[in-house]
Amino acid sequence: MSKTEPRTLAGFMELLPEDQILFEQMKNKIEKTYQKFGFLPLDTPIIESAEVLLAKAGGETEKQIYRFEKGDTDLALRFDLTVPLAKYVAKNYGNLSFPFRRYQIGKVYRGEKAQKGRFREFYQCDIDIIGDGELSPMNDAEIPSVIYSVIKELGFDDFTIRINNRRLLNGLFESVNQKENSVEILRIIDKIDKIGKEEVIKEIAELGIEKDQIDKIMSFIEITGTSDEKLAKLQALAIDNSTFSQGLEELSSLVRYVRAFGIPEQNFAVDLTIARGLDYYTGTVYETFLNEYREVGSVCSGGRYENLAEYYTDKKLPGVGISLGLTRLFYKLNELNAIKAEKKSISDVLIIPMVDDLEVPIKIATAFREKGINTEIYLNDKKLKAKMKYADKLQIPYVIVIGEDEIQSGIVKVKNMITGEETERVIEALEAGQIRLD
Amino acid sequence: MSKTEPRTLAGFMELLPEDQILFEQMKNKIEKTYQKFGFLPLDTPIIESAEVLLAKAGGETEKQIYRFEKGDTDLALRFDLTVPLAKYVAKNYGNLSFPFRRYQIGKVYRGEKAQKGRFREFYQCDIDIIGDGELSPMNDAEIPSVIYSVIKELGFDDFTIRINNRRLLNGLFESVNQKENSVEILRIIDKIDKIGKEEVIKEIAELGIEKDQIDKIMSFIEITGTSDEKLAKLQALAIDNSTFSQGLEELSSLVRYVRAFGIPEQNFAVDLTIARGLDYYTGTVYETFLNEYREVGSVCSGGRYENLAEYYTDKKLPGVGISLGLTRLFYKLNELNAIKAEKKSISDVLIIPMVDDLEVPIKIATAFREKGINTEIYLNDKKLKAKMKYADKLQIPYVIVIGEDEIQSGIVKVKNMITGEETERVIEALEAGQIRLD
Repeated sequence: MSKTEPRTLAGFMELLPEDQILFEQMKNKIEKTYQKFGFLPLDTPIIESAEVLLAKAGGETEKQIYRFEKGDTDLALRFDLTVPLAKYVAKNYGNLSFPFRRYQIGKVYRGEKAQKGRFREFYQCDIDIIGDGELSPMNDAEIPSVIYSVIKELGFDDFTIRINNRRLLNGLFESVNQKENSVEILRIIDKIDKIGKEEVIKEIAELGIEKDQIDKIMSFIEITGTSDEKLAKLQALAIDNSTFSQGLEELSSLVRYVRAFGIPEQNFAVDLTIARGLDYYTGTVYETFLNEYREVGSVCSGGRYENLAEYYTDKKLPGVGISLGLTRLFYKLNELNAIKAEKKSISDVLIIPMVDDLEVPIKIATAFREKGINTEIYLNDKKLKAKMKYADKLQIPYVIVIGEDEIQSGIVKVKNMITGEETERVIEALEAGQIRLD
Repeated sequence: MSKTEPRTLAGFMELLPEDQILFEQMKNKIEKTYQKFGFLPLDTPIIESAEVLLAKAGGETEKQIYRFEKGDTDLALRFDLTVPLAKYVAKNYGNLSFPFRRYQIGKVYRGEKAQKGRFREFYQCDIDIIGDGELSPMNDAEIPSVIYSVIKELGFDDFTIRINNRRLLNGLFESVNQKENSVEILRIIDKIDKIGKEEVIKEIAELGIEKDQIDKIMSFIEITGTSDEKLAKLQALAIDNSTFSQGLEELSSLVRYVRAFGIPEQNFAVDLTIARGLDYYTGTVYETFLNEYREVGSVCSGGRYENLAEYYTDKKLPGVGISLGLTRLFYKLNELNAIKAEKKSISDVLIIPMVDDLEVPIKIATAFREKGINTEIYLNDKKLKAKMKYADKLQIPYVIVIGEDEIQSGIVKVKNMITGEETERVIEALEAGQIRLD
């Protein structure tokens, strides 16, 4: 028979078991943390009607989308978890309790150019808080406390949640009469880390903006110091624009509330260069950087928006949320050797029977499982050496060999595969649920 | 602005939060049980190259598949988790340890005719054990012990795992010279529960099969009694065919081993009418029925196959596995009111601040979360009544209201929302992690 080559598409992550175990641990930690803050689970379809999914889309997104027909229905795969959330809230408005706090962890699809570390199928881990008509700014301050808990839970201490307010930027542009150029200017500012200050000034000037206006923009961008110093310097700029003033007030409150939420000073900072995309966010914006692994980029980003679902409903639904791109984050951190599995195997114990009658091995395995210990019985007919090698390769931490001698004596040895130590246990005691491994 | 109707496609399940919580609980129980038996996690892409995915498919499957082009690549969505497993094992053969035990829980896609209770996107929860060249029949006996644990864990006691061996049927057909009609006959026999014995005989006769051959087939199908009685009666049929004899021997051993695995007699039975599809399974086959909810159909099915990945590799990879169709099972059981959530809310506690300064509410929430208690703070500016209603609607079991009085006295009341009882707690003790709810 001629064979088909068993390949996986470029841009699609498929892991070997050892990496998959680590990936699942990260995913579970994120999910558990979201639940700790009382976010409700949501699971929407991966396929939606193209009309629904693209109600708002345009530009780059539309080009990248997986869109196809089945029968005469125009379908598309979701490219993020926000549009499905907007659809869901608009559709189920009358059946939800507000503020509606939901998390969703699921795969999304973007037909990006395939390159190393870029994925066409990837997990997003989102939380959003949606208000009915209004949503207290306290919610903007709670989000960083969720980010803080997630990143700590993932094992990192040295990270910074950077916060800004879009109104500051918008007000600034209004004050220098550059509202119509704001999208372009923001795009250039977003690159400052990569291309440097001089190049930013040059590119902005190329838009035909005058020097004193550029100076004003740059004096804003270049504000340095602690979060409090930055807020004071923003005040000192004395920009006479109501949008700017509102942004400054919101950002000042946010800093105060973030402290109330107990985020340590070293883990958050006002960063006036953060803009987060161009038209979606309206107030607070967040990015999160691992300071030892800056090359990873922002691991968790989001912000405040005025209206979640205006393409589907007249209801005003303001919200605030973040997204963590798990597939890329896992890929990068794994490549950098920056993450380790807490438990390298699924099985805690491998029971190796060297007898035909499996009664004793099965009874012990059942007793272990009832105590919440993942227990595997090696059921194939192999030499002891091959069975031990299997435990070794799967990094199973404990092994119990059960042969005729053990059955006769009523005593088994539990072998710790890391230390090599063996401890004796009475079979009857194990079967009765008196279980200790070391 | 004109609005797009926020609809979800027919055949795609999308749940309200209360149902989603229940669904997640079922999914987690299945996953935890699979892990208890030492199965490794696997997550393969939902999109595969159509050539790879359809290497084996044909007939009904091919018609139902979601297939489309992106650029000039011919793509398809997976329609089960077995084909991706075959691809994965063939592709990663050198990097896996055998027997390779994996579970996968994920969505699959079939463009079936839309009707109530039929889904086009649904979760399958699969386990498989794959051998390298050979696989001990003990593995066939372990699978029912996993099924048993899963179904018990889902809260059911009255269920039957029905087991059969395909070789018995194949051998029977060979012995009456009806090998070439076997697919057709099996298809008719599969319907016996629905159409009855007389209709089965009539339809088989319509294939042009003679009466004494039909009698032989029916005397096989109609064997009744306990599992042991059935095995004895099969022996007594004295069918002189080597395939039949092998099947009988395998089934007899399986019953012996299943008992060794501690499955109670009332939870398994030899059922000679089970065939499970037509060409994939080669030996043992399983189906599982909830006896109080027979209308649900088999909730968990599978069997033994000789060769997992022959379309991709020359390696012989025998395996045994099962699949649980979670989406349909959830839908049916929920409709029948046969499942209840253990925990109806994600949040265990709702903290309701009636003060501006959130220091105390946040400190208490943080202490609770550190103890693994999911805790939400109501952050919006509403009247107390509206806040209590929110807790009520989300069925959050405990509420703590924190107002000026509580801050002054240093004592809060923890309200049990089910009993209405309130117990006093010292704020400082809670903050210090001395947490009791009732």
